[in-house]
Amino acid sequence: MNADAVPRRIVVVGTGLVGTSVALAMRERDAEVLLTDRDPAALELAVELGAGTALPDGARGEPADLAVLAVPPAAVAVTLLDAQKRGLATAYTDVASVKARPLAQAAELGCDLSVFVAGHPLAGSERSGPGAARADLFLGRPWALCPTDGADPAVVAVVTGLVKACGAMPVTVDAAEHDRAVALVSHGPHVVSAAVAARLTGADEVALGLSGQGVRDVTRIAASDPRLWIGILSANAEPVADVLEAVATDLAVAASLLRDGSEEAATHVADLLLRGNAGRSRIPGKHGGRAPEYAEVPVVIPDRPGELAMIFQAAGIAGVNIEDVTIEHSPGRPVGVLQISVVPEAADRLATELRARGWSVPGR
Amino acid sequence: MNADAVPRRIVVVGTGLVGTSVALAMRERDAEVLLTDRDPAALELAVELGAGTALPDGARGEPADLAVLAVPPAAVAVTLLDAQKRGLATAYTDVASVKARPLAQAAELGCDLSVFVAGHPLAGSERSGPGAARADLFLGRPWALCPTDGADPAVVAVVTGLVKACGAMPVTVDAAEHDRAVALVSHGPHVVSAAVAARLTGADEVALGLSGQGVRDVTRIAASDPRLWIGILSANAEPVADVLEAVATDLAVAASLLRDGSEEAATHVADLLLRGNAGRSRIPGKHGGRAPEYAEVPVVIPDRPGELAMIFQAAGIAGVNIEDVTIEHSPGRPVGVLQISVVPEAADRLATELRARGWSVPGR
Repeated sequence: MNADAVPRRIVVVGTGLVGTSVALAMRERDAEVLLTDRDPAALELAVELGAGTALPDGARGEPADLAVLAVPPAAVAVTLLDAQKRGLATAYTDVASVKARPLAQAAELGCDLSVFVAGHPLAGSERSGPGAARADLFLGRPWALCPTDGADPAVVAVVTGLVKACGAMPVTVDAAEHDRAVALVSHGPHVVSAAVAARLTGADEVALGLSGQGVRDVTRIAASDPRLWIGILSANAEPVADVLEAVATDLAVAASLLRDGSEEAATHVADLLLRGNAGRSRIPGKHGGRAPEYAEVPVVIPDRPGELAMIFQAAGIAGVNIEDVTIEHSPGRPVGVLQISVVPEAADRLATELRARGWSVPGR
Repeated sequence: MNADAVPRRIVVVGTGLVGTSVALAMRERDAEVLLTDRDPAALELAVELGAGTALPDGARGEPADLAVLAVPPAAVAVTLLDAQKRGLATAYTDVASVKARPLAQAAELGCDLSVFVAGHPLAGSERSGPGAARADLFLGRPWALCPTDGADPAVVAVVTGLVKACGAMPVTVDAAEHDRAVALVSHGPHVVSAAVAARLTGADEVALGLSGQGVRDVTRIAASDPRLWIGILSANAEPVADVLEAVATDLAVAASLLRDGSEEAATHVADLLLRGNAGRSRIPGKHGGRAPEYAEVPVVIPDRPGELAMIFQAAGIAGVNIEDVTIEHSPGRPVGVLQISVVPEAADRLATELRARGWSVPGR
């Protein structure tokens, strides 16, 4: 192992989305990666994607620098015990979305926790499986690490090395605090998104036809795999239940205030909307800090090849760096609107350049 | 007025986001647009943006072809009465997000409903005011129309002409049905988004630092202006309360099932997630139908001018039409990931072209 503690040889146990993405990221860093999964098809696909080679059955070679357990929360403790019995590696980590219960279970089973640092990359997708894996899944994302008091500093260093090699930002946090945090910013919102989407099962086509971008955004993560998520929610049951109860109470109160119909009741509903404003503004934005206020330059674009290239070329000529782009949905029409986010001082320059080249830049 | 009933001369009452956007869209169609707003600053900004000219005070000219009342739901009826008394136009419509209550109020006030067709464009933004207005705000969006039984067919034709001239798709629907539909796909999700965001007001920095894309999407619309929204929610109180109560019940039940912790309880939580999958899949996608399954081609991009141009140029050379693009956030890092959505059969061609030109196209 070299000085900055990046593992050179790792074993990935579980070749789903996250495990295969870790493997791909470490392959790009020229690490040796051995893969194993109880599902032979998932393992084969990960190998085909170039994520590494299959761990030979029953092989008793040199232990790897690190074993990454990319299995559901309920499987972490038994997988750790098994991996340690087989002497797979000299250090161990996991990537499960819940930390406290798997740690308690591992202690109960008698795992050696001095060589285990629990981890959780905050990167995912509504998609799953090795086919959705990407080497850059973790680029710039937070990756929680929950070392116990007895953790070997060398093991903490190698797990931190993995996190940084994957391009993620290590965030050290107590396991119970982690679980309450993700209940608030991930697991709770997930169930709420599902509950909103579930209302649409009974909607008629007219109602669905009136769907705008708002309900699409609120329900995007409701498309995730329920089998993965029920494991996560069950393993973090109490913190998630706390969040869901608080949201349910706010919604039930809002419903009752709306039925009341008085001015005073409306004021209380407005208070919830104001708290929503305040909470939303606390989510950190791109580049690590608060969301900078980018200016949006809208461009009307025909839906055909080459158009975007010419627009971005014009931006390059104007020396304007594009921070973000969105193509707005245009159901049933062959034209769309490209929203280009740029730093405010560049917006007029870009609009002028685009307009000079014949594009419609409405409303600027 | 010409044969296809597109109004040639309109008055827009209320120069907020929607009113000014209607004005800009009709200016692009060379209509004459007169503007009025009780806030002189909003009126002045709309005029400066090229949305039209200010309606002269007390002028008694020829009535316009159509008056568009772009005011909050609670103000629709009184504004209609006032406009009709002044003889502003020969036909009237509004753009409020709620339809039944304003119609009932207008009938009560003795407005002439034979020349009024209530409307609601399903296009908005978490931003507001004339500064956020865009001529293309309505491109390809549904625009609900709720003509009453006694509506003059010529008035229905001119309002439909306005909707089509703005690039939107008219959807005729009963007012009460409209209100229940938007409670489900817009107003209800709005309050839920606020309730999730409101939880974050008490979160510590560590928790907020673990925020991923999921909570960002769920809470995006929680950034909207509470003053506008309390008016919408109050005017559609009963249908919204129905949706909120149903969601609150699902969440309270899920919380209690999670605390129960049994296998059977977990199955019931999984049922909610499955219903979420089913509901989410019912939202129509781009181009009017169900969401087609686009393939995503990820490209790693340095955060600098010109890079996107070259990528889109390569796509154009490969003859690949780009359906959607997303730049993924990379807090604290100078590189990002561009997700390019294309029809599945073009994905390999695009990946090959990009790779041949030196880009990293991970995991494909």
